[in-house]
Amino acid sequence: MAVTDIARRTYDHNFRLDPIVRSLLDTDFYKLLMLQMIRHIHSDVQATFALINRTQTVRLAEVIDEAELRAQLDHARTVRFTKKELIWLAGNTFYGKQQMFAPDFISWLADFSLPEYDLRKVDGQYELRFEGPWTHTTMWEIPALTIINELRSRSALRDKGKFALDVLYARAKARLWEKVERLRELPDLVLSDFGTRRRHGFLWQRWCVEALKEGLDNRFIGTSNVLLAMDADLEAIGTNAHELPMVAAARAESDEGLARAPYQVLEEWRAHYNGNLLIALPDAFGTTAFLRDAPDWLADWTGFRPDSAPPIEGGEQIIRWWQERGVDPRTRLLIFSDGMDIDTIEQTYRHFHGRVRMSFGWGTNLTNDFRGCDPDGAPGLEPISLVCKVVSADGRPAVKLSDNPVKATGEPEEIARYLRVFGSAGQVEKAVSV
Amino acid sequence: MAVTDIARRTYDHNFRLDPIVRSLLDTDFYKLLMLQMIRHIHSDVQATFALINRTQTVRLAEVIDEAELRAQLDHARTVRFTKKELIWLAGNTFYGKQQMFAPDFISWLADFSLPEYDLRKVDGQYELRFEGPWTHTTMWEIPALTIINELRSRSALRDKGKFALDVLYARAKARLWEKVERLRELPDLVLSDFGTRRRHGFLWQRWCVEALKEGLDNRFIGTSNVLLAMDADLEAIGTNAHELPMVAAARAESDEGLARAPYQVLEEWRAHYNGNLLIALPDAFGTTAFLRDAPDWLADWTGFRPDSAPPIEGGEQIIRWWQERGVDPRTRLLIFSDGMDIDTIEQTYRHFHGRVRMSFGWGTNLTNDFRGCDPDGAPGLEPISLVCKVVSADGRPAVKLSDNPVKATGEPEEIARYLRVFGSAGQVEKAVSV
Repeated sequence: MAVTDIARRTYDHNFRLDPIVRSLLDTDFYKLLMLQMIRHIHSDVQATFALINRTQTVRLAEVIDEAELRAQLDHARTVRFTKKELIWLAGNTFYGKQQMFAPDFISWLADFSLPEYDLRKVDGQYELRFEGPWTHTTMWEIPALTIINELRSRSALRDKGKFALDVLYARAKARLWEKVERLRELPDLVLSDFGTRRRHGFLWQRWCVEALKEGLDNRFIGTSNVLLAMDADLEAIGTNAHELPMVAAARAESDEGLARAPYQVLEEWRAHYNGNLLIALPDAFGTTAFLRDAPDWLADWTGFRPDSAPPIEGGEQIIRWWQERGVDPRTRLLIFSDGMDIDTIEQTYRHFHGRVRMSFGWGTNLTNDFRGCDPDGAPGLEPISLVCKVVSADGRPAVKLSDNPVKATGEPEEIARYLRVFGSAGQVEKAVSV
Repeated sequence: MAVTDIARRTYDHNFRLDPIVRSLLDTDFYKLLMLQMIRHIHSDVQATFALINRTQTVRLAEVIDEAELRAQLDHARTVRFTKKELIWLAGNTFYGKQQMFAPDFISWLADFSLPEYDLRKVDGQYELRFEGPWTHTTMWEIPALTIINELRSRSALRDKGKFALDVLYARAKARLWEKVERLRELPDLVLSDFGTRRRHGFLWQRWCVEALKEGLDNRFIGTSNVLLAMDADLEAIGTNAHELPMVAAARAESDEGLARAPYQVLEEWRAHYNGNLLIALPDAFGTTAFLRDAPDWLADWTGFRPDSAPPIEGGEQIIRWWQERGVDPRTRLLIFSDGMDIDTIEQTYRHFHGRVRMSFGWGTNLTNDFRGCDPDGAPGLEPISLVCKVVSADGRPAVKLSDNPVKATGEPEEIARYLRVFGSAGQVEKAVSV
């Protein structure tokens, strides 16, 4: 019906805010799994998170209006977990396991809200920091990133004509569908959406996820986005992230403690989740050092998520490590999730097919690929390398080395100390686009 | 944005079916409560349900296309409870009680689908019957009614112009809002939506429920529609219905058994729900007979839902009964749900205010009141008195007398026997419009 709905039109005109954060479930599943453990074991730890824009050429403070940014951040602080969401978290099965979240954690979530933020403009960039208990600041990571990224998209599209917009989304849909057709050629593909943090926008991510569900059928196993998992009856995907070893390392009292930190964290994880969710992230302080010093029990885990080494080299390195320990890699899982796109997924799939179980977490290039889609060819839609990382824990600086020095974060003198403790073997510099 | 979404337009053009039954939760809450007990205690009982159109002047088979009706009934049979819905049923709190639905019942629901139907045209009406296990046929009641009622609405609106449609809904909204403004004047009002079965359509019921939520605030306590309760975070409202005493009566082996049946059913109910949900429906075979022979323990129940006596006379009769047993009516609840509208709600509220706890279940006149709304003044939008009742159990005929002989259902000789057993004291003839 083409009749104008006057009531709706008037409501829309008076709309003060088109909220970006619609739900506290609009976050990555691993944040909730980590949060439960943090609250249980480390509820006294203070952790500061900060926004880091590695794409310095994009001057965010000149692109995004500060008042709009504050309005979105303030709105996110008013959002609470709803009754329906908590019932779902309590009652759903995750990775085949019931009651992944304990009743006392669910009750605690009922009162949860995002804590205060500190925002200022410095040299064309936003300094956005979250200070306070780790149990609260950790939950800002994803909303902070989705807010900044979606405000940037909105700003890039603000002055576009209606037909230009229509063509832009039509091209982006066609572009994704071409990728889907190529992925269909990979019979044993196992793929999930990891694109929340860098997405073009919430509605676009939802479109992409639903397109994969229809187009890839059971080759598409789920999404890291908890809200989309709930709404589309998909599996929620994820385990843990770099912040666990980074905080443990920052809190270590000595260089020996620092060297032990990455493995202590995994022992805590295994104990807390009773031997479920056994995926290790090897690259926080360099995969080579991590594997060299790893305890034997780690070879019994389900697998690894190499997250900053080039996928083929990184995968081969881990396969060799398993083989040296007498483990058949075909019984183990590698999850590739670092800046993957159609070409690297195909190459990695073909390279390892039959030699190891594989799963792909497809992120930015799934939910924010508008290359060549804008009829005006204007800039502003290309994704940027924006992260929100823990920068200190209990007042001590936090560091991430990764396998790619370009992705390292932390103060230079601390980075130097970490390199002394862990070594720099295996580091490969690679341009970071997303 | 006024740009035509071509993909959507094309999809809509090729749309084979605009489904009326979107979910198996799109039913009255009491159906699920009764179903759990039926499955637990009476899983071997066969029960036939049939559509009964008491408004014989409306020749449904001339208004509703048979192929469309079959398509909607067939579609409803393909619908299953989704994972999210089952998790919500298992995890939500109903009437303050957790785990109202047992895990084995939830598992059983996961495989549930509506059974076959038998449809034929007879003399301008549809004969629609559902034969089979009571555990399955009972679930057809609400979908059968919503399908017939919504197909009738669609048929009435098929040839309307776009502005006529726009005006029609605008007037209906204004009409409901006037009622809301009057209801706001009743400070202790307790009201819920009981309008699923006779609604104009699903989307319109949703609008009405959301309007009451905004307009009446905490005077609006919830809805009998389970899907709307879930989606709008409202309480699901309801307990039990006439089919329980009707089936028990039909299965009674003697006149003595028949006389005991209405109370046996209530004992079963109390035992099955561990003393929760203690609301009795007194009118299946006449309220006067029911109260005369009722056991003393019934005075300890929370209250009654008088459903066919005029509300003030029916309420007074029950209040006298309580007082004769030394019970203070101010500690007891009356739920009025028979054809209520703004005038009778106001009258009943004012009459009983301060003397008894009251709650109103607002049905047809909430969700299907388009009187004076159609700019063309054409017929077809006035609600009709359509029910879907149990007509036999284990091969024996079922009967309902009610307090209003116009609402009686069953074969004449059986009605005569029931009148002999229960008596006809207190019966008041009243025209039935909805």
